[in-house]
Amino acid sequence: MRHLKLTIAYDGTNYVGWQIQANGISIQQRLEESWESVTGENRRITASGRTDSGVHALGQVCSVSTESLLPTASLVRALNAQTPYDISVLSVEEAPAGFHAIRDAIQKTYKYHIQNGRILDPLRLRTCWFVPGDLDIEAMQRAARSLTGEHDFASFESAGAERSTTIRNVIELKIDNERVHGFPGLEISITANGFLYNMVRNMVGTLVRVGRRREEVEWVRWVRDQKDRKYAGQTAPAHGLFLDHVVY
Amino acid sequence: MRHLKLTIAYDGTNYVGWQIQANGISIQQRLEESWESVTGENRRITASGRTDSGVHALGQVCSVSTESLLPTASLVRALNAQTPYDISVLSVEEAPAGFHAIRDAIQKTYKYHIQNGRILDPLRLRTCWFVPGDLDIEAMQRAARSLTGEHDFASFESAGAERSTTIRNVIELKIDNERVHGFPGLEISITANGFLYNMVRNMVGTLVRVGRRREEVEWVRWVRDQKDRKYAGQTAPAHGLFLDHVVY
Repeated sequence: MRHLKLTIAYDGTNYVGWQIQANGISIQQRLEESWESVTGENRRITASGRTDSGVHALGQVCSVSTESLLPTASLVRALNAQTPYDISVLSVEEAPAGFHAIRDAIQKTYKYHIQNGRILDPLRLRTCWFVPGDLDIEAMQRAARSLTGEHDFASFESAGAERSTTIRNVIELKIDNERVHGFPGLEISITANGFLYNMVRNMVGTLVRVGRRREEVEWVRWVRDQKDRKYAGQTAPAHGLFLDHVVY
Repeated sequence: MRHLKLTIAYDGTNYVGWQIQANGISIQQRLEESWESVTGENRRITASGRTDSGVHALGQVCSVSTESLLPTASLVRALNAQTPYDISVLSVEEAPAGFHAIRDAIQKTYKYHIQNGRILDPLRLRTCWFVPGDLDIEAMQRAARSLTGEHDFASFESAGAERSTTIRNVIELKIDNERVHGFPGLEISITANGFLYNMVRNMVGTLVRVGRRREEVEWVRWVRDQKDRKYAGQTAPAHGLFLDHVVY
């Protein structure tokens, strides 16, 4: 049995998310169908994490085991000929026996894009959150310091996917100005050893409350210390979120 | 009567183009409907040029005359509340009497985005042309020199919109490497005192033949000198094209 690591990119707009579900088409379903077309094998393909409907990926990593003897470069070409245009296979690599995209992940980086100012950028409707008005980026950067390091991040976990522990280590949280098509905005980049359900989107919604001056910088630390989701800001919409890359 | 200059941005994907047509929804129609909702006036709104279906704009300029007394900032807010999300009004300014978006334009800049390499970027399906494989950008840049300056550009005019003269002055034609989402590509920026029908897309299709090494650098000058569309390369697809800005 051969073990492979697939790196893929997708526009999540038209999918119910990564995971196969009864109520619509998932990225996993399309990828497994493409795998079957190419290899004849009906295989489970596992991703490093389940992205929700509307969430995009530039470097999602998947694991699959196979009896296929096709060289990796041929698999890339053949899979891309089968996947829809909004899912691309960036690479296929040989992986060690037992390689598992979830268990073996050491850290992941998500990026979240916000467009602000007075006017909506009509060319980024699917890929960033429009927050009208000004954002105090400097206050958001100071508030973000309470969200780095090892903490119990229960305040930023949405209900629906209980994990054994809510302690995670946020290795880096960067907030940078970004100007796209002449419109002002921010890129929030978060790297951690693991993420709770909706953790990035809940952190972004919380930081934006500070950016809009609805809350003080210190409020974010207080929210974190409550270890209760009800104190945090809104869950930022899915379509601004990108799974950027995964480290193994 | 008041004369106004509107600057607008749009994603052209879901429209038949700028101009009102019987076979579908145009940007002009949606903008004129929005104007009527806001002012009660049924007015003709004229754009600097008719963009085709799928072509985008970041700085299209329009002229309209009005009896409305609404301040320009209120018009921006009120119009954006009426237009669909994929059309934004960036600014409304007072213009001199008789201001006309077509006749008064001194020069326009279009940008064309190409993504190349082996793999399609699933996040730019609507906004760039995927040209698989390598492109010799240095050869394209040398070939582009034949397309700058004042020339008869009849070879780059598609049928369907005859102009009185096919002489235009291309003030600048720049080709730059561009990397988006980790995928390689090019941005081709063309500034001229006016454009023939499909001129940018026909130039891009012609330059890409050189980039793909199907033709020599010198071929582009030869094509230009034929003054006949049948010698040029393909018309590059609409969705890579952006009307960037117009100078008055």
